[in-house]
Amino acid sequence: MSLVVVGSVAFDSVATPFGERERMLGGSATHFSLAASFFTQVRVVGIVGEDFGEEEVAVLTRRGIDTEDLERVAGGSTFFWRGRYDFDLNAAQTLDTQLNVFAGFQPKLSEGSRTASALFLGNIQPGLQSAVRSEYEGGGLVGLDSMNLWIDTQRGALIDAIRTVDAVLLNDAEVRSLTEEPNTVRAARKLRELGPRFVVVKRGEYGAALFGEEGFFGMPGYPLETVVDPTGAGDSFAGGFFGYLEGHGDGDLSQAVLRRAMAVGSVMASFNVEGFGTERVQALTDADIRQRFDDFKSMMSVESLQLASALRSDL
Amino acid sequence: MSLVVVGSVAFDSVATPFGERERMLGGSATHFSLAASFFTQVRVVGIVGEDFGEEEVAVLTRRGIDTEDLERVAGGSTFFWRGRYDFDLNAAQTLDTQLNVFAGFQPKLSEGSRTASALFLGNIQPGLQSAVRSEYEGGGLVGLDSMNLWIDTQRGALIDAIRTVDAVLLNDAEVRSLTEEPNTVRAARKLRELGPRFVVVKRGEYGAALFGEEGFFGMPGYPLETVVDPTGAGDSFAGGFFGYLEGHGDGDLSQAVLRRAMAVGSVMASFNVEGFGTERVQALTDADIRQRFDDFKSMMSVESLQLASALRSDL
Repeated sequence: MSLVVVGSVAFDSVATPFGERERMLGGSATHFSLAASFFTQVRVVGIVGEDFGEEEVAVLTRRGIDTEDLERVAGGSTFFWRGRYDFDLNAAQTLDTQLNVFAGFQPKLSEGSRTASALFLGNIQPGLQSAVRSEYEGGGLVGLDSMNLWIDTQRGALIDAIRTVDAVLLNDAEVRSLTEEPNTVRAARKLRELGPRFVVVKRGEYGAALFGEEGFFGMPGYPLETVVDPTGAGDSFAGGFFGYLEGHGDGDLSQAVLRRAMAVGSVMASFNVEGFGTERVQALTDADIRQRFDDFKSMMSVESLQLASALRSDL
Repeated sequence: MSLVVVGSVAFDSVATPFGERERMLGGSATHFSLAASFFTQVRVVGIVGEDFGEEEVAVLTRRGIDTEDLERVAGGSTFFWRGRYDFDLNAAQTLDTQLNVFAGFQPKLSEGSRTASALFLGNIQPGLQSAVRSEYEGGGLVGLDSMNLWIDTQRGALIDAIRTVDAVLLNDAEVRSLTEEPNTVRAARKLRELGPRFVVVKRGEYGAALFGEEGFFGMPGYPLETVVDPTGAGDSFAGGFFGYLEGHGDGDLSQAVLRRAMAVGSVMASFNVEGFGTERVQALTDADIRQRFDDFKSMMSVESLQLASALRSDL
């Protein structure tokens, strides 16, 4: 049982209304791995430079994440992103992007990764996603994330990659933009017609929705009074979601299992945004996760929902 | 048992990507009343002109809505709004607003309305909302809706009105703007600190959230492939929500009852947007409502949600 994720491993400098941090450990594969690590054995495929130190590696290994496929380029620098969030914390403003070693990233899967029991294609160039997909021989669930950059510049390649996966996780705007369909329900159907068995639409603070073979499931976001740093929330959602599915779904993609995975993803995303970078997720305990999962469930429970004799005609 | 609503009664001309209609029956009180009429006895307080015909009145009376307090101004013209929605159907673009008789609206409550068992202050000038509130002697639940126009131009008066009600129903942007607080959780708390026992934040296609004494409840929107005309969706939500509460809450504002009311509101809003103006709601049957309520419940059910032994430490 293991879940392999390919994506970016980065240093992020972030300013939000709550403060700022320089060169924190970040990147899609990092946030994904940490979130998933609470539920299953994770292997991370990525590339870093010589500036990526023992301390950064230890953040991953302390959570039992296998870094065998984390390539380190001697003399190179790690992918660097600088961004800021304004008062509403919704959209990041990118101030600087230095791809560095990430520009030449050619993911290499070790035997252990090629035969892992699930694969998540994090947000990298679609051509690389397809290449990794081809190398994967594990026969397990394959998921994919992407971003507007690839939708705008490499749409065809992205659609080709989507054709080869079981699950697509994208945010609302990405789903609409990729399908050129403003209605999310229809947009998700279009994506499923390409091949994926289900589509998860991430809606930030509004929650997430699942469109699959057994229909629709919608979920609010976990309500937070203080969002410190939204960076990586989507990746943490994906990590929790996929980590749960791989670790505990046993190949079962029924609604019950998928709904549980959605709630887990949401819980992990909610922790992610409560601290800068990975700091909150690093410090998480199983008890924290259990507690929030139960709270979250009670916040959306509709068990007692019966229309009963509410209509006037019933009176 | 009766619910009185004060608000606009209007003619709307609307163009959407799905077509256009001229001078349909519309207005906040109209949409609210029709939605609520499936759950309780409704009385509408509003003003119309001589152009408001028997056919328009009949749309209300056919649903058992009491129009005793619908003032008709001889020689006057009914409030008229013309708007259009673009491809994404999210925001209405106002092309024309003619207040007509609505400009001089001084709501007058008959004995029956003054003593009704609940009051909803639809979206009118905050000073008028307060005036109506003062006149109301029924001692029942009082709710309020508003809009950005009043938040921007009559904030103080609106806050005064909010201090006198039990429930506030606003959309996401309105709640943030009114409280100058971008975080919805804190914004809702600020509103509750003014007096209301609970706040409902309407989130359009993303659903709705309830912030009350017993905490948070979040709900997705009912997923629709085709949204024909969003005009009145928020009013239909409010009508379903308040209609259910008044008709069946028996003064019980427990989470179970409020959650049911939220689901009813969402169901009524989803019907509203499936047709132009009031046409879909006019044609609704109780069976339609029951069916969608049950479908909706199943789309958000998390009864089977147990984290169980999902964490790695459990293994």
